[in-house]
Amino acid sequence: MPDALLRHPFMSQTALAECHDEAMVQAMLAFELALAEVQEAHGALPQGSSAQMRCCLESHTFDSAAIASGIASGGNAAIPFVKQARAALPDELKRYFHMGATSQDVIDSALMLLLKPRLAALDALLVRCRAAAVELMKRHEQTVMVGRTLMQQALPITFGVKVAHWAIGLEQARRRLAQAELPVQFGGAVGVHSGWDEQGLDFMDAVAQKLGLATPVLPWHTDRQPIHALGTALDATAGVAEKLALDISLLTQTEVGEVAEPSAPGMGESSSMPHKRNPVRCAMIRGAARQVHGYTTVLLNAAAQPLERGLGEWHAEWSPLVDSALLLEGALEQAATLLEGIEVNPEAMHRNLAATGGGIMAEPVSRLLAPVLGQDAAKRISAEAAETARFQGIPYTEALEAHAEIAQAHGQLDAEALRQATDPALYLGSSQAQVQRAIAWLQQE
Amino acid sequence: MPDALLRHPFMSQTALAECHDEAMVQAMLAFELALAEVQEAHGALPQGSSAQMRCCLESHTFDSAAIASGIASGGNAAIPFVKQARAALPDELKRYFHMGATSQDVIDSALMLLLKPRLAALDALLVRCRAAAVELMKRHEQTVMVGRTLMQQALPITFGVKVAHWAIGLEQARRRLAQAELPVQFGGAVGVHSGWDEQGLDFMDAVAQKLGLATPVLPWHTDRQPIHALGTALDATAGVAEKLALDISLLTQTEVGEVAEPSAPGMGESSSMPHKRNPVRCAMIRGAARQVHGYTTVLLNAAAQPLERGLGEWHAEWSPLVDSALLLEGALEQAATLLEGIEVNPEAMHRNLAATGGGIMAEPVSRLLAPVLGQDAAKRISAEAAETARFQGIPYTEALEAHAEIAQAHGQLDAEALRQATDPALYLGSSQAQVQRAIAWLQQE
Amino acid sequence: MPDALLRHPFMSQTALAECHDEAMVQAMLAFELALAEVQEAHGALPQGSSAQMRCCLESHTFDSAAIASGIASGGNAAIPFVKQARAALPDELKRYFHMGATSQDVIDSALMLLLKPRLAALDALLVRCRAAAVELMKRHEQTVMVGRTLMQQALPITFGVKVAHWAIGLEQARRRLAQAELPVQFGGAVGVHSGWDEQGLDFMDAVAQKLGLATPVLPWHTDRQPIHALGTALDATAGVAEKLALDISLLTQTEVGEVAEPSAPGMGESSSMPHKRNPVRCAMIRGAARQVHGYTTVLLNAAAQPLERGLGEWHAEWSPLVDSALLLEGALEQAATLLEGIEVNPEAMHRNLAATGGGIMAEPVSRLLAPVLGQDAAKRISAEAAETARFQGIPYTEALEAHAEIAQAHGQLDAEALRQATDPALYLGSSQAQVQRAIAWLQQE
Amino acid sequence: MPDALLRHPFMSQTALAECHDEAMVQAMLAFELALAEVQEAHGALPQGSSAQMRCCLESHTFDSAAIASGIASGGNAAIPFVKQARAALPDELKRYFHMGATSQDVIDSALMLLLKPRLAALDALLVRCRAAAVELMKRHEQTVMVGRTLMQQALPITFGVKVAHWAIGLEQARRRLAQAELPVQFGGAVGVHSGWDEQGLDFMDAVAQKLGLATPVLPWHTDRQPIHALGTALDATAGVAEKLALDISLLTQTEVGEVAEPSAPGMGESSSMPHKRNPVRCAMIRGAARQVHGYTTVLLNAAAQPLERGLGEWHAEWSPLVDSALLLEGALEQAATLLEGIEVNPEAMHRNLAATGGGIMAEPVSRLLAPVLGQDAAKRISAEAAETARFQGIPYTEALEAHAEIAQAHGQLDAEALRQATDPALYLGSSQAQVQRAIAWLQQE
Repeated sequence: MPDALLRHPFMSQTALAECHDEAMVQAMLAFELALAEVQEAHGALPQGSSAQMRCCLESHTFDSAAIASGIASGGNAAIPFVKQARAALPDELKRYFHMGATSQDVIDSALMLLLKPRLAALDALLVRCRAAAVELMKRHEQTVMVGRTLMQQALPITFGVKVAHWAIGLEQARRRLAQAELPVQFGGAVGVHSGWDEQGLDFMDAVAQKLGLATPVLPWHTDRQPIHALGTALDATAGVAEKLALDISLLTQTEVGEVAEPSAPGMGESSSMPHKRNPVRCAMIRGAARQVHGYTTVLLNAAAQPLERGLGEWHAEWSPLVDSALLLEGALEQAATLLEGIEVNPEAMHRNLAATGGGIMAEPVSRLLAPVLGQDAAKRISAEAAETARFQGIPYTEALEAHAEIAQAHGQLDAEALRQATDPALYLGSSQAQVQRAIAWLQQE
Repeated sequence: MPDALLRHPFMSQTALAECHDEAMVQAMLAFELALAEVQEAHGALPQGSSAQMRCCLESHTFDSAAIASGIASGGNAAIPFVKQARAALPDELKRYFHMGATSQDVIDSALMLLLKPRLAALDALLVRCRAAAVELMKRHEQTVMVGRTLMQQALPITFGVKVAHWAIGLEQARRRLAQAELPVQFGGAVGVHSGWDEQGLDFMDAVAQKLGLATPVLPWHTDRQPIHALGTALDATAGVAEKLALDISLLTQTEVGEVAEPSAPGMGESSSMPHKRNPVRCAMIRGAARQVHGYTTVLLNAAAQPLERGLGEWHAEWSPLVDSALLLEGALEQAATLLEGIEVNPEAMHRNLAATGGGIMAEPVSRLLAPVLGQDAAKRISAEAAETARFQGIPYTEALEAHAEIAQAHGQLDAEALRQATDPALYLGSSQAQVQRAIAWLQQE
Repeated sequence: MPDALLRHPFMSQTALAECHDEAMVQAMLAFELALAEVQEAHGALPQGSSAQMRCCLESHTFDSAAIASGIASGGNAAIPFVKQARAALPDELKRYFHMGATSQDVIDSALMLLLKPRLAALDALLVRCRAAAVELMKRHEQTVMVGRTLMQQALPITFGVKVAHWAIGLEQARRRLAQAELPVQFGGAVGVHSGWDEQGLDFMDAVAQKLGLATPVLPWHTDRQPIHALGTALDATAGVAEKLALDISLLTQTEVGEVAEPSAPGMGESSSMPHKRNPVRCAMIRGAARQVHGYTTVLLNAAAQPLERGLGEWHAEWSPLVDSALLLEGALEQAATLLEGIEVNPEAMHRNLAATGGGIMAEPVSRLLAPVLGQDAAKRISAEAAETARFQGIPYTEALEAHAEIAQAHGQLDAEALRQATDPALYLGSSQAQVQRAIAWLQQE
Repeated sequence: MPDALLRHPFMSQTALAECHDEAMVQAMLAFELALAEVQEAHGALPQGSSAQMRCCLESHTFDSAAIASGIASGGNAAIPFVKQARAALPDELKRYFHMGATSQDVIDSALMLLLKPRLAALDALLVRCRAAAVELMKRHEQTVMVGRTLMQQALPITFGVKVAHWAIGLEQARRRLAQAELPVQFGGAVGVHSGWDEQGLDFMDAVAQKLGLATPVLPWHTDRQPIHALGTALDATAGVAEKLALDISLLTQTEVGEVAEPSAPGMGESSSMPHKRNPVRCAMIRGAARQVHGYTTVLLNAAAQPLERGLGEWHAEWSPLVDSALLLEGALEQAATLLEGIEVNPEAMHRNLAATGGGIMAEPVSRLLAPVLGQDAAKRISAEAAETARFQGIPYTEALEAHAEIAQAHGQLDAEALRQATDPALYLGSSQAQVQRAIAWLQQE
């Protein structure tokens, strides 16, 4: 698979540098050594044997390619890994290695260990995004722009409040992700610590603590709620980054031009069109997020696993889960860069507010007219004037004043109020209050 | 669409009786009346007008078919609903109805209102499942059966511990679902309470309180984290019910026969085979859960919505979200019935434990042999004896005793210990401890 | 479920009027009567008995609500339907009804019968779309507009060629859909015509022919390739409609304004903003298509069904499959209306072509400069001039002429050629040839 | 990403050895050289320049790591690839390289070139599966086993007919896959061959022919029907392999034991349980297929791409599409091995047929009783006897004879016929005819 050219570009390069086959081997080893230490502490292993194992195996160079090619016969990496590790141990220690454990214990726990620094990195990126967003919200608390619904100009908002909505989403996703637990898995062959009686649960708890993983109530070999919770939390976060990228893509359109991706040498260039500055970061985010959604559906459909071990369902989780984390980390790196460096163009926002000749202000006008002309007429007249303004290219105020029924109702309507009702900058609703509230909430943690 | 024959059978009939077009109309009305009351309390409406509206509209018979056919031109039910409601109001009140609100406010809030009793019903079903599971766990704390990995017999467990794992999953899902918030939506045309300034947020908070919905930080018209959190929590729960149904389906197989669905007149009959007792409840759960997974992928892919209103993304959420809840409620009704009435057949469990001639006990035997014969020989010999037992149909103990290398090592091995190591009922690991721990955790809330 | 308010609006109303519970009952009946006739013709039923059945049952009013409520115990509608039908028959005929058939035979075949007119309707809509598209392509063969990549202005195309690409997609989907087979299902309890020997296959073939369904090689009770092929063909078509809706949504944006949805009284109105004309048809198409994608994932994940009958997998197919067809029919009705009535605004296209000061022509300019100034310099200079034009708001030609290096190379460059290279209408590539080729291919069928 | 340990094990190792980053670079190069040759042949390049390019670049060692790291700024591999290639060319040729092409032309065409040998390999595997299946069908045309619906024993079939159903599915998938087209993509910046006029289409056609790819009607940069058709055809095939693996998993269950995966040294071993022989190949197939389903949902949701270039939608296709092919190839290698080496255990099949005391024969018995005792009584009695047989562990024939109502009807019932109706081997329906028909159809191509 052309991974470097087709998959990895969407992933965090930092993450890829930390999360690879050797790291997986080390994570499997970490689990086994923690287990041995715990078992020794409980008197199940001869004194000193876990230290001997650690000494022997930490300096051992595992052949991850050989492990990989050994997967075919057992269906997972733990089996050939355990063989390779045992072969490296002195004979008297062999039987104490991987004692009471099963492949799934090793793989599941190792995956959790691999993901732990990734969740930390995701949290850090989301904190970085939050800081940048707060900064941006403050800077643009008063920057007027048009709000758009169904991609049509609707009514004015501020750029600050738009960022506030992004920030709320990001922070909600961060909090959800922070709640996702990474539990150790240890249950032995059928999840009941065969051969260990109640001690098994003590081992499980102690290994969790030693590895810095969460302690599950029980082994979760076929109770995949932790995977579902984690996978969907990753997906939710991808959705927020995707929303930000979608908005920025729309606002960077040539005809809109209200924001631009931060410029950098070579960024956004086209192979054929020298004038283009493509929203490449947005494309990468959206490309990543869409893949995450697909990978998450694998997890949704694999949540129900048969009896005491999945038959394919478990195997199908590995790559989609880890890939989702790496794709998301890539997307959030882009998102942080966007939030920190986005170029905002208030003039373009101003220009676009005028694009309908002020017709976007039909709603406030309609409200002003209603008490005098009635609800229905008010709505109709404000709409007719909007059409006139749009087609004749005249300001909305003029079109209103020229409307026959308004001219007729002349005495009853406050012309100044009417003119004011057509000024977007005076019609921002709770935009500012929302920014304030968002900042308070974001910092409240 | 042949709804009654193809879709509804998977849904809770109780839920269907409460959650229909008229209920949606009433939910939309509830939102509008709450909004008017709040606005009146804040002095934005003439005193008494909200009471007048309520009086007038609660007695009004809405024509939901007409609302339905009015959807085509605006794309959602709120527009024709508002028209119909306004038409039913005296002229002087018309302009105060739906004031400052937009269609999405009405639809989103109404959906949350519709879902509120559904979440309560789901919680009650999960509590019912929990109680039944605890009962079942206690009853079968000592019921020995074989654990199966990759659908192959592995090592003994108890039926109690199997139920404990189901129960943990159900309760984890219940707690996740209980955390899902149903927030009010109120933001007006572009989500900033155009025309209301900071008062808009006060209105939002007050309407939430009045309707018993959660108060969002900000309007969430295109920040769909609440939908994602809710939808994926429903999906997680569906996954747990599906796991239970998968296990029961496998255990009810004719050749396994360890459990049976509760019998009831006509249940599980085949249209052609009189002898069959099909696991119909399991089929219905699995049919429902699979649909939920698909519907959830719609929500994952619709989380990123453009600018201030989705253009199809929002619209795509409605049916998948509500359907997921109704399907899940149907699935949990089946699950509760299963847990309450499942027929357990310990004799069949006992019989199956003997199916491999005791060969499933190769692992404990291997452990016992290892100190004397070495790790590798122990594993090989216990496996060879298992094969012998399986092919010759003799008990595993005999096959072991007959094995040349064991015979050779005669003096060094404790024959009684060897015989004990082949008794499943003495090799249950932490099964009992897990049941105890699960019960404590389940009741700890 | 608030079907009329939340689900059905996305579906074809014509389709909903034809495809409902009673139609499903009639389809089940049609299958059973065809089977009886075939069996009679093969001498397996007494002469005249099938006619008697038809006479008796076609005039019988089935109680579809009772059938619906009978589903709970057997898991599908065929069982209570067969009971109800048998009850309506004279005693001597009862045993000849549903003879050798199983529930799945009835349901699967009935679904195919239900879908048959839907596929015909979809084909007709796609033919209507094709005709409208050809018309539109011809009308706008010379209408110049800007092409946009990554939503940025790139280089000129024609509106005609854009429509040609839509039309190719629609027609490819139509041809794929036309190839999807609707096979009869008849295999009896375990798919081998138990009790009928080789005659079973003859029955199957003859029933297919009688019902106008396709003849499968073998019964396909757990070989769901026909469902997969059909479901994914529906999804592909939904994707094409969605592409068209996405393009139109983008082109109708206030700032772009190159096309508008056909206007109609009330269409696209907002509940709060009188001036808006929302692209409602696009929203409905996109809302429908996204649901279809989710429903299709149910089918993908249900393709593997266990042994001789699905245990939930089969059940999960019904609603997603039929819903997909009805949603798609709704989407195509909208698409046809869009293609027939779309308002095209060549002036806006012309205006937008000038938005970058002609900077979109940097690529042809670069080509012209390359032989004289070298590839890299050409690309750099044409890009620099584009930036200058964009920032200073001057025409691209002027920015080019003012560029130092171009001024220097004065003698070597043909000023007129340079000016021409900046005229979009002279740089349409194969636009016209593509329209011609598309028309030829579309009509070639 | 721990690719070698978590992802690649599910993929074909042969495929991985051929389909990697360097191969992608070579595929991009192949496209560019074919384009140059075509352009030279049309007089658009100086005579001999394409040969010079080929000479220069085929011997050039591309630095695919550098290409990979260059992706960040442009969003795809074509941009840095083109830069690297141009840098390797003499100055006078630089401008003729990638002339008139855009990144998407290069990437899409290169992907098609990468997939071409994969489709050939998939076809060969499916042909291998077909041959093995035919062999197996013939061998087991008379091997009686029980058919199971909803995983319950139902009525007898043969193992041959079961294989026939697998084979039909595989062959249907093969034919669908064989129809999937791999078209060249060439359209230039906005898909209209800017700067080339009608010649652009000639170039496209000629490049297609030179590369052995299909000729599309028009460039398909945002008309992704070819990707949808290909991706869903891969998914359909994965579904068939998954069905086979699901059946085999169920039939290899310890209590069923009717088939076993082909044995091989070390295959199916457990890391903790020496006696286990896990259906590892089935697990790998199911693990792969589930991932394919998820990846396919990415393609479904990315089918609608905006205007003249996707903004993330296109990018999201690459990895899911190629991964699906490699996962499927891995799954089919396993499937072929299974079909070629599956161990069939007719004794176990025979034993299982007797598991219900013959109660599975209730349907034929019911049929025999009906003319004498009436439809309802026949069904009831045959069911009651089945229950008796099951609970008392006596043969069904005895239970029947002992039934009061049968005893009563003694004179009217043919005891011998009754005993025969309970012999599974005499009740195989069209099993044999189906096998014959399947073989004919499979070989008919």
